Order: sequence, then structure tokens, then C-alpha cells
Amino acid sequence: MKINSSFDSGNIEVVSSDDPKNITLNIVTDSNSEFKQWFHFKLHGNTGQTVGFEILNAKDCSYVDGWEDYQVVASYDRQYWFRVDTEFTADKTLKFSKQLEQSTIYFAYFEPYSYERHQNLVQVSQLSDLCEHRVLGSTVDGRDIDLLVIGDESKERKIWVTARQHPGETMAEWCAEGLIDRLLDQNDALSRSLLDKAVFYVVPNMNVDGSYRGNLRSNAAGANLNREWQAPSLEKSPEVYHVRAKMKETGVDAYLDLHGDEALPYVFVAGTEGVPSYSDRIKSLEDEFKSVLMSVNPDFQDEFGYDKDEPGKANMTVANSWVGEEFNCLSYTLEMPFKDNANLPNKETGWSSERSYILGQTLLNPLYQLVDKLR
Amino acid sequence: MKINSSFDSGNIEVVSSDDPKNITLNIVTDSNSEFKQWFHFKLHGNTGQTVGFEILNAKDCSYVDGWEDYQVVASYDRQYWFRVDTEFTADKTLKFSKQLEQSTIYFAYFEPYSYERHQNLVQVSQLSDLCEHRVLGSTVDGRDIDLLVIGDESKERKIWVTARQHPGETMAEWCAEGLIDRLLDQNDALSRSLLDKAVFYVVPNMNVDGSYRGNLRSNAAGANLNREWQAPSLEKSPEVYHVRAKMKETGVDAYLDLHGDEALPYVFVAGTEGVPSYSDRIKSLEDEFKSVLMSVNPDFQDEFGYDKDEPGKANMTVANSWVGEEFNCLSYTLEMPFKDNANLPNKETGWSSERSYILGQTLLNPLYQLVDKLR
Amino acid sequence: MKINSSFDSGNIEVVSSDDPKNITLNIVTDSNSEFKQWFHFKLHGNTGQTVGFEILNAKDCSYVDGWEDYQVVASYDRQYWFRVDTEFTADKTLKFSKQLEQSTIYFAYFEPYSYERHQNLVQVSQLSDLCEHRVLGSTVDGRDIDLLVIGDESKERKIWVTARQHPGETMAEWCAEGLIDRLLDQNDALSRSLLDKAVFYVVPNMNVDGSYRGNLRSNAAGANLNREWQAPSLEKSPEVYHVRAKMKETGVDAYLDLHGDEALPYVFVAGTEGVPSYSDRIKSLEDEFKSVLMSVNPDFQDEFGYDKDEPGKANMTVANSWVGEEFNCLSYTLEMPFKDNANLPNKETGWSSERSYILGQTLLNPLYQLVDKLR
Amino acid sequence: MKINSSFDSGNIEVVSSDDPKNITLNIVTDSNSEFKQWFHFKLHGNTGQTVGFEILNAKDCSYVDGWEDYQVVASYDRQYWFRVDTEFTADKTLKFSKQLEQSTIYFAYFEPYSYERHQNLVQVSQLSDLCEHRVLGSTVDGRDIDLLVIGDESKERKIWVTARQHPGETMAEWCAEGLIDRLLDQNDALSRSLLDKAVFYVVPNMNVDGSYRGNLRSNAAGANLNREWQAPSLEKSPEVYHVRAKMKETGVDAYLDLHGDEALPYVFVAGTEGVPSYSDRIKSLEDEFKSVLMSVNPDFQDEFGYDKDEPGKANMTVANSWVGEEFNCLSYTLEMPFKDNANLPNKETGWSSERSYILGQTLLNPLYQLVDKLR
Ligand SMILES: [Ca+2]
Ligand SMILES: [Ca+2]
Ligand SMILES: [Ca+2]
Ligand SMILES: [Ca+2]
Repeated sequence: MKINSSFDSGNIEVVSSDDPKNITLNIVTDSNSEFKQWFHFKLHGNTGQTVGFEILNAKDCSYVDGWEDYQVVASYDRQYWFRVDTEFTADKTLKFSKQLEQSTIYFAYFEPYSYERHQNLVQVSQLSDLCEHRVLGSTVDGRDIDLLVIGDESKERKIWVTARQHPGETMAEWCAEGLIDRLLDQNDALSRSLLDKAVFYVVPNMNVDGSYRGNLRSNAAGANLNREWQAPSLEKSPEVYHVRAKMKETGVDAYLDLHGDEALPYVFVAGTEGVPSYSDRIKSLEDEFKSVLMSVNPDFQDEFGYDKDEPGKANMTVANSWVGEEFNCLSYTLEMPFKDNANLPNKETGWSSERSYILGQTLLNPLYQLVDKLR
Repeated sequence: MKINSSFDSGNIEVVSSDDPKNITLNIVTDSNSEFKQWFHFKLHGNTGQTVGFEILNAKDCSYVDGWEDYQVVASYDRQYWFRVDTEFTADKTLKFSKQLEQSTIYFAYFEPYSYERHQNLVQVSQLSDLCEHRVLGSTVDGRDIDLLVIGDESKERKIWVTARQHPGETMAEWCAEGLIDRLLDQNDALSRSLLDKAVFYVVPNMNVDGSYRGNLRSNAAGANLNREWQAPSLEKSPEVYHVRAKMKETGVDAYLDLHGDEALPYVFVAGTEGVPSYSDRIKSLEDEFKSVLMSVNPDFQDEFGYDKDEPGKANMTVANSWVGEEFNCLSYTLEMPFKDNANLPNKETGWSSERSYILGQTLLNPLYQLVDKLR
Repeated sequence: MKINSSFDSGNIEVVSSDDPKNITLNIVTDSNSEFKQWFHFKLHGNTGQTVGFEILNAKDCSYVDGWEDYQVVASYDRQYWFRVDTEFTADKTLKFSKQLEQSTIYFAYFEPYSYERHQNLVQVSQLSDLCEHRVLGSTVDGRDIDLLVIGDESKERKIWVTARQHPGETMAEWCAEGLIDRLLDQNDALSRSLLDKAVFYVVPNMNVDGSYRGNLRSNAAGANLNREWQAPSLEKSPEVYHVRAKMKETGVDAYLDLHGDEALPYVFVAGTEGVPSYSDRIKSLEDEFKSVLMSVNPDFQDEFGYDKDEPGKANMTVANSWVGEEFNCLSYTLEMPFKDNANLPNKETGWSSERSYILGQTLLNPLYQLVDKLR
Repeated sequence: MKINSSFDSGNIEVVSSDDPKNITLNIVTDSNSEFKQWFHFKLHGNTGQTVGFEILNAKDCSYVDGWEDYQVVASYDRQYWFRVDTEFTADKTLKFSKQLEQSTIYFAYFEPYSYERHQNLVQVSQLSDLCEHRVLGSTVDGRDIDLLVIGDESKERKIWVTARQHPGETMAEWCAEGLIDRLLDQNDALSRSLLDKAVFYVVPNMNVDGSYRGNLRSNAAGANLNREWQAPSLEKSPEVYHVRAKMKETGVDAYLDLHGDEALPYVFVAGTEGVPSYSDRIKSLEDEFKSVLMSVNPDFQDEFGYDKDEPGKANMTVANSWVGEEFNCLSYTLEMPFKDNANLPNKETGWSSERSYILGQTLLNPLYQLVDKLR
């Protein structure tokens, strides 16, 4: 029996594997930071064997609430990922077990999205006449910060989409992929009509270093990118630094920042009600955005979500707050669950890459409806 | 040089092929009827050669307006279909020519949808746990009248969709395929939510005989099925007879009948404003249906379309009128263009199978929004 | 419960369907001929129900030996075809039954190959720079007689391949498809090297009329094409007439005629040992062909097969005999089983489209090895 | 303009990028070793721009002959890789340039094969009933050493295949993928027959660390694995250590070690003529292997290759020599070109992943022919 996490976004520490029925594990802390919750490893055993795991430091992870009703994700072929029965125990460890149908199985906090796939997404997308790839700068580890410009930059409206500031929230890049693919589908009348009025700037992965390193929330330097928007630095948060600079160059008329939430089993948004410049105009855009999205994708809801910020009390270091204030525009954080959407549960897969992808496609609907009203 | 139409939905008569630059043709009349407009044939020539065609009886076809601004559809591989420069001449023939990139090319009035593909659609769909195939009866030529039941028949709402009463309107079946595929996608939250409240009864091809025979509008017996709904007969219009009977058995809470329009370069609907029982309730459902569809698919519009029926003056032999009256429900004929959508033209393909398919997917949006209000 | 065969290559007569457990059937005789053995129909019933069939006239079919150890082929989706337990009873009827996993199931004598797929094969193949489509003439029913010319006609060696003279032997066209696809694969060094020395003339379906009509062996006029090679006529056997004429124009250096055999559960060839001009040269080519094919595809064997013709006693009306004599060349009939290859049985599928396709690919190996020695 | 190699198998050092028409580069030396020749990087520029490169240290690379007539490999989408006009200059730098059709382009020494794809190959293959995945141990960097066992271990013959001891020789893993896929195709009679007599042990990538690091020949510790077979160590060459141990456990009846050759534009093998135990038996196996492979895949030849070892003068640290001697069996190094096969050149792609894959499929042919004679 052998456990390994030496691969893209791998993360686990084996405490003891003496007893295959009770392999004890710890999740490794993010690079230069205290965050931890993402895990991703493979186990090699014997077909037919039952293996059991216990993540000992579950209680010390960043979002202990994230383990309640959470089911681990697993795959034999790295294509189909399914949920495994999981228990957050009384003594606050995470326990799960599985009888092996093949000798090797991968486990993860959520279906991974590799840097290879990211590069393919960027390169294949650029083949479209509608799309151009730009590199905004370099990450801490020296990777490219990739931007896809979709549509005609002379169009009046500038819509920005970023994903995966928190690298462990892989659903954000699956979601971005759905949005990108739909925008590039020239048979889709809504995409065509939207691109007649707006150009899209999409950063499908804000944190490629953290992604590769198997971090939950930090980049290579230990920065939580979504707390860096007021004063990003080239040293600690070049990803935000460069994206912010490009935003200032293009302007922003609407912004979506794609995320995953560890605790809440729902898809929801967080707006800019707490930023100084919040206004009825923005509130009305927010309301219509939510209403349209809800109407085209019932996986989205507006009942459960974060507590609203009090006026003026927004954390201005957060991307959507900073962008909303800086550009006085519609600016949303979109959250998807790591668990499932409790309103439309799927026992086999929970929330999944496929559902994230479809959500990404449907994000174009509210943008299309609002595009003329954004300013 | 050789012209042939001996295949599924083939239709052409060669008047003269002596001059490859001016091959004269006639469209063959529908079985036992006077309708004619659909054509579908292949030409075998030499790569590099330019061939020219003239359809002599274009002026005698059912919809002479259909030839204005119409571009013939062609394909070398029967997978990618493109438009060919076409002229409706001063003396009312249809002229087009093409330099051959391969020795054999297919031409058609619109991208065909074969009976083989129809059977595949039915059989592959039935594999889903959500779908069951039923056979309602036999056509005049003895083919099956295929019904797909999608969802749970105990659900309160019964939604019927029929396509291709007029067999030459192949876009109707491409559209049905899009609607069916989306309904069967269990990752699509809107489909899941809709099937939580409604069951779908879909007849993807009402007129398989006419389709195979290369008719524009008639079935094998010469009947225009969309004028048979008041008094269908087992002899002349068994397709309508059986579908109508099944509708009476299930009830109908909403009905969509999918069509193509020869003349108008737009996607539009025709409602039931002229049926006796028309009411504010129905009008309001119609208005919301149109409004939602327009908002999710800009290929749909409500400016251009048929003249409205005066109150009580609807032709009750037409499917959507008969259904609307019989079941006092939302009941629409949906029309797609043979030409293009003039609001979002695509020079290369015009209106196409892909756009019909996407339209079919988006038809679920207004149905989802209305499902609670249908009764 | 409903049985239907009104589709491409459909063939069945229902004697009685009163008892779903014992539906009695007859196979319909070929057009204008006495042959019969091919069947193809669908049954619509209820999921979970067990249906039983009895083909009453099995004993009157063309190859009664064909029913010994034969298993009926079936499919729910028309993509995956599997075998169904079948018994050739003491009183010489063919009995089989099946519990339905979906409401509709197709049954056939062998996995069908439709005229739609044939047209796709021809059209997609012609897209290759290596391939040109030609039409040699018209069948009795007015369909095109399709020829694919693969490679450079100036090359010294002319290799002819024909398939499906007997239309019910669909494995022959699956086999032709494998051969064609491999020839067109420009990454395949053997195909490239072979086309450096030879041009291929491939008729993937000699009998498209009989195929569509659901015949076992006859064309639309009732002719057994493989008995027409000495004196074909435009009226009765235009398919042979035109192919023979084209062969005379191009010359033939090697010929393969692809068939299925009803009785023998083996892949084997029949050569030209009985034609007047048979020689040691031809025998040696035959021996090497068989030896190479056996070495690259163990589905082929040379132990079981037809009795050898005595010298000079070949039936010269048969394609491979006539071609072998006329062109004094290697000329083989290749037979595949309807049942299975008893040397490498596959319980689930028996002999199949996939295995026929691979056999077609491997036919290029002996041709490559022999190409320099053919003359 | 921006150059980046921070990804799987990336390797380049930018000396100067001031002049886009003459970007000067150096290839980075392998980890802890002097080898260098593999490069892999992307350039981000402007569509339409022409960029020129000069690899300054080409003359200091491991195989200077490798640059003669070599063409750089490039791709816009990382799926289709094509050759770029390249010159090995009089002053021994490697120069190439390209007008950009999209803003971002990847360049490499040969089409890459990523660790992500490797993991997919392993995981998808294990789904087959015929295949089981085993992990033999850990590499220097802590990755798994993956073994695929294909077939039934109780079979008499044990056939071993290893690939990519030299990680920059990516064609070796493309070749292994072809061999694996064919073995797992249960419709392939040759694969089935071969697995009836032999079990395969396939290591599709012997050097996953070096592969990821962008090395040409070394593992993470700087070892040339193909010189480690006499005395591998857990510290320096665990990959060889563990594979060798497993070979001793299973025995070896035939061995193929897959490689790429930098200089020779041919596919060829190197045998064991120089090992002490070399015998007529082995020579005759070698001769038949070559003869069969040549007959089924003309990309293989036996005219050009390495000089033969004199008797007893083989380098016993090389895998195929050590295995051949240890197990007194057929044991070959198979070499594919980085350039092209000069006998069957392809201007667009040169030697490619596709041709390597097909070569892998055809390697089963000589093994099938020899399987009974291996002992
Ligand atoms: Ca582009
Ligand atoms: Ca079903
Ligand atoms: Ca061609
Ligand atoms: Ca397995």
C-alpha cells in the first residue's frame, strides 16, 4: 500500500499507514501561510481491499464547518469523480473509507483542475477569431498570468471575470471554462449579442502557483490574493498587482470573481453593499443579476449566503469590493459549494465540474440582460 | 456528370444536364399533393469544375417568397453544410453555381435530418433513466409514430412538443433534438427543476413518411398534417389521429409545435389569439413566454411574424389552435427560418442545424419560468 | 407490443404476435428471388417484459446450416450490438427471447450498415487528398454505384476491393471501412508505402439496392450479383456490368471480394484454384497472402473453408473467378462469419463490426508484402 | 514579448530578448549532470509578428549531430505540433523563426508528453479487466514508479517494455501508449492471441522526475538511467533499482526498451550481439523480430543504426544488454528519430506522436510471431 501526492495540486502528509483500515493523515499547510483544507493524493492498494482514512488535523483546518456533511471526492480514472461516504467525527477528524474497485484511486477535496488543462484552455481558446491570449506578468514562481480577451476591445462595455484567487477552489476554473466556451460559440445568439456590446477580460486562474502547489488559499508567497486588492505588491501578490493594473487600463463595467465556499451547500453571490459608493443603481443591478441568474439556473439561489456588510463596512482588500468601489460598477463574488447544492442534491457527484461548467455558461444570461444598463 | 436523389429525403427532377454550367431542374411535387419546395440531391462531377443550376419551376413552388434572398445549402461531407450564392432571377427561376472542391457535392433546401438519425435519437434517448420510448401507432407507409416520454408521468404538468408535421422543415427536428438532449442532462439544474414539476411528451418527427419521401409539407397520403387536427383520420392522417388521442389521454398544459418558415428570415411564434377560448390568462402566458425566450435567446424576436388572427377566426384545423382550444392552454407554433435570422445573420451557414439545436435547448427556459402558472 | 421493419434493411413478417412470449415470424424472401435469411426489425414493448420469438421459416431459408450455433444480434441504442441466446430447435425453427431493459429493441441477423452510413463513408473519404469519389453508373433502383479511388492512378499496381455483393453480408462493408480508413491514414507507414506502388479501387457496397431492401443475396432485380460476372446485363445486374467495365479499363493486379458466410464460424478465403489459367505463380501469391494475413490477424485461418475447386471446374460467373481468369491475378473471396470465429470466440458480441473493421485494416498487410510480386 | 518555461518539462534560458527577431537562448543543463539538448518553452507576442530565435549553446549540447537537418517542433494549441524551418548555422547555433498566427506559441525539441497525460494513461488503462496498475517504488523526487501489468501473470511468457529512461525522448511514451492501447483492445485478435501466451509488464515512463524537470537524459539525481543497470542504487537510480528487482521476480522472456535518437533520421533497433551469452538462438530471434517489424511497419528499417558491438564488448550497464545477459532473452533497444524517418519523410510534422503511437501498436506483431520461440 502506497500513498503519493507528488503531482499537480497534490497535498497530504501520511502520519501512519500501518493499518490499511485506518490510515491517518494530515493536510499540509499552504505555502508560507496558515491556511489548510485542500487535499489531493492517490492510494495504491489491492483491488477488492477496503481502505480507511482519518484526517487528523481536520479540526485545525481553515474551515471546520466545511467538514460538516462533506463527502470526499474520488476517481479511478481521473475523469469521472464521485463522492465517498465521509464522516466528521465527534472528535473532529474526517473519516472515510472505500472498497477498491481498481488498485489505484485518487482522492481530493474537489475535482482537480490541472495546470496542463489550464494551458490547454488558454491555447485552444486563442485559436478562435474572437479570442486573444495576453500575458499580464509573472507569478511569484515565475509562471505566466494569463488573460483571455474575448470579443472586440473597442466595444463600450468591459466585463471582467477572474477565477481561482483561492487555488483550492477548482470549481471556479471549471466555471470559467463554461463561460469561455459559451462566449466562443458563434452559434449561440446570446453570446454573439453580448459580444456585440461588450468585451470580456477573463483570468481563468488568478493563482496558478498556489494551484500547482496544492494550496487552499495562498499563492507561493503565502498571500491570500483576495485580501490584496488595496495594496498588492510585485513581491507578494504580483497576480493581483498586474490584473489590477490592467483593469485600470481597460476600465471595468461589471466584474465577477469566481470562488468556492467550504461551508455553505449553496451557490450564492456576495455584492458590494458595504462599499462607500454603493448606490441604488448598483443595488438594482445586483437585484436584477440575481433574479435573472436564478431564473436561468436553479442551482443559484439568494436565500443562503454570507451576512450582508453594513454600509461602509466592506473589506476593501477583497477583489469584488475594491473593483466595485474603484469602478463604481456591478461587482460580485460568486460562490459555489465544495459540498453540494442542498436544493438540488446529487448523491453520486455532489457539486461537480459539470455543474460548475453549466453555471459558467449561464452567467452570460444576466450579463446579457444587464449589458445596456451597466452604466 | 451525374445527379442523383435516390436517398432519404431526396427530391429533384433533372430537365437537362447537357450543359454543366446550366443544369436545369424541377422540384418534384409532394406525394399526392400540390405542395413543392423541398429539394435534396447530389451531383457528381470533377474536382475544380464549376457547375451551375437553374430550378425552373421555382415560381410554381408553394412559397415563391421563400426564394427571395434565399441561399442554397450544400455539403461535401454531409456533416458541414454551407450556403451557396443563389439568385432568384427576374424570370423567377432559382439559379446557383459552385466550383467543386471535391468531385461530389450534396445540395438541399436545408440541412437534412435523416430517418436513420431520427431512429438513433429515439434509441439513444431511451437509454436515459429519465426517458421512455413509446410507439403511438403506424404511419400511412407503416413506420412507427415515435413518442419520447421524458420525466415522471405522475407530475402535474403535461408539456407536449411536436416537430416536423411538415417534413421539409428539418430545422424542427434539429430543434427537438436540442430540447431533448438538454432535458436529459442531469447536470442541468433547469432541466432537473422543470422535470420536478412537469413531464414532457415529445414527438421529434410527426411525419416520418413525408420526411423520407422528400416532401415539403405532406405525408404519404398527401395530407397537410397541420390542417388535420379537427378531424384526423386513420387513413389519411394517422400521425395526427394517434398523437391527438394520446394528448386527450394525458391532457396538455403547454404545447409547442416546431416548424420552419420559407419566407420570413426570423424566428417567431404564432399563438392562439384567434381561438374561441382565448383569454387574458393565455395572453399573459404567451407574453411571458415570448419575453423570457427573447431574453435567453436573441435569435428569437417578436417584431416580425404572421398577422394575428382576429378573435374567433383561428383555423381550428391547425395543431396549435386545436390544442390551445381543446386544452385551454398555452399553445404555440414556433417558426424558424429556412434563410437566416436577419437580425443576426451568418453569411457562411445562414440559419443552421446548430442554431436550431441551441434554440431547442433554450425553449426550456420559458417553460421553466411558466410551469407553475400554466394552470 | 409492436413490431416494425419499415426502415433501411428492415425485413420481417409477423405471423402472430398474440402471445408476447411466443411471437411467430417469417423472414421475407429477397426481391424477385428465392433467397432469404436476413432479418432486421424492432420490437416495442414494456421495459422488464420478456419477449420470445420463433422464426417459423428458418428451415426454408437459404442456409439452414447458418442457424446451427447462431446467436441473434440485438441493440437498444443501435450503436452497441450484442448477442441473444438463440436455439435452432428440433423442428427447425429459430427461437430466441429477451427480457427488455428498455422498451424498444432492434434485432438483426448481423449488425446493420445503413445507406446513410454508406453515403457518409463515401463523402467523408473523398475529403482526403488521397481519395476521389467516382460514380460508375446506376443501380436497378437508380442509386449511384460508388467507387473510391485511393492513391495515384499512375501507379503501376491496380488493386480492386469490392464488398457486399450480397447485401445481407454487412460485415463486408464494415471490413471495407477499416481498409479505407487505414489507407487514408497518412501517419501509417504501411499505407503510405503501399500507395507508393499501388492505387486502390474500392467499391464499399456493390449492392446498395439489396442492402436498403433488406435482401440477403439479391439486388433489386433478383440477381445474385456474385453469379453475374461472366455476362452481366444493364437490366439485371448493372452493378456488376459497370464495375467489370471499369476493371477492364484500369486492369487488375489483385482483387479482394468481401463476404460473409452463414454457416462456417471462421474467417477464410476462397481462391482461384479452379480457373483455367491458375498457375504456380498464382498459387504462390495465394499462399503468401494467407500466410501473411494469418500472421498479422489470428482471426484469419486456413484450416476451415470451402472445398477446393478441381482444376478447371471453377464457377466462372463468380467475381473472384472471373477476375482471376480475366486478369490472371491474385483474386480472393474473403469470408467472415455471421456467427463467431470459433478459434477466438467472444460470448458477448460474436463476430462483430469492430472485428470486421480491424480485419479490413490488416488486409493491407499481405497486399503490402505482395505488391512487388503481383506481376 | 515574453518567454516562459515554468511548466511540465519546460527548459530554456533567455540570454537576450531585446530584439524579437533575434532572441538568444541557451538550453539548460539536466539536473545534476552535464547533458543538455531538450528544450520546451512558450513565447507570447503579437499575432502577425515574426519572431526569430538562436540557441547559442547548441554546439555544447550532448548531440551536436542532432542539430543537422533538425526542425524545431511548435504548436499553437498544444494538440497539433508542426515543424518550423530551422538552420544549424556555420557557427553552430540553432536558428529558427516563425510568423505568429496566434499571440502565443509553444516550441519544443519534440512533442511533449506531460506527467498529467502519464497519470491519465495509467489510470484509464487500469480500468480494463486486462490491466492492473502497480507501483514499484519511489523516484528520487518522490513520484511513483508506475508499472502496468497487462494480461494474466500465470502465462508462461513474460514480456517487459520500458520507455523513457531518457526523459527528453518523449516519443518513447507515445510509442508505449500505442502498444498499451492495442493490447487492451479486446477486438484485436492479435492482442488477444498474444495475451493468451504472454503477460506484459510495461513501464510507460521510467524517468518521471527527469520528464517533469525538462531533462534530456538524467533523472533528478543526475543519473543516466540507461547506464545504471549493473549496479543501480536506491539513492541515485531507484527507478532502475526497482524495475530490475521486479524483473528478477517475474523473469523476462523478451524486452523492449523504447528510446529516441537525436542524430539518426531512422527507426532502428540495437540488440545484444555484444553480451557474453549472445547465441545463435538470440541472433535468430533478433533477425526474425526485425524482419517481421519491417514487414508490418515500413517506418522501421535495419540499414542505418548504431555500430554493432564486438562480441563480449557490450556496455553491460545499458538496460537491454543487462536484461539480455541476465535473462538470456531477446532484448532490444528501439530507437525513433527526433528528426524524421528519411525513408518516409513528412515535411509538416516530421517524426511525430502519431507515428510513434502506430509504431507501438505494430511492435506487438513481431512479439506475437516470436512468442512461442522465445524460450
Ligand atoms: Ca485568436
Ligand atoms: Ca429509459
Ligand atoms: Ca479528395
Ligand atoms: Ca483493472
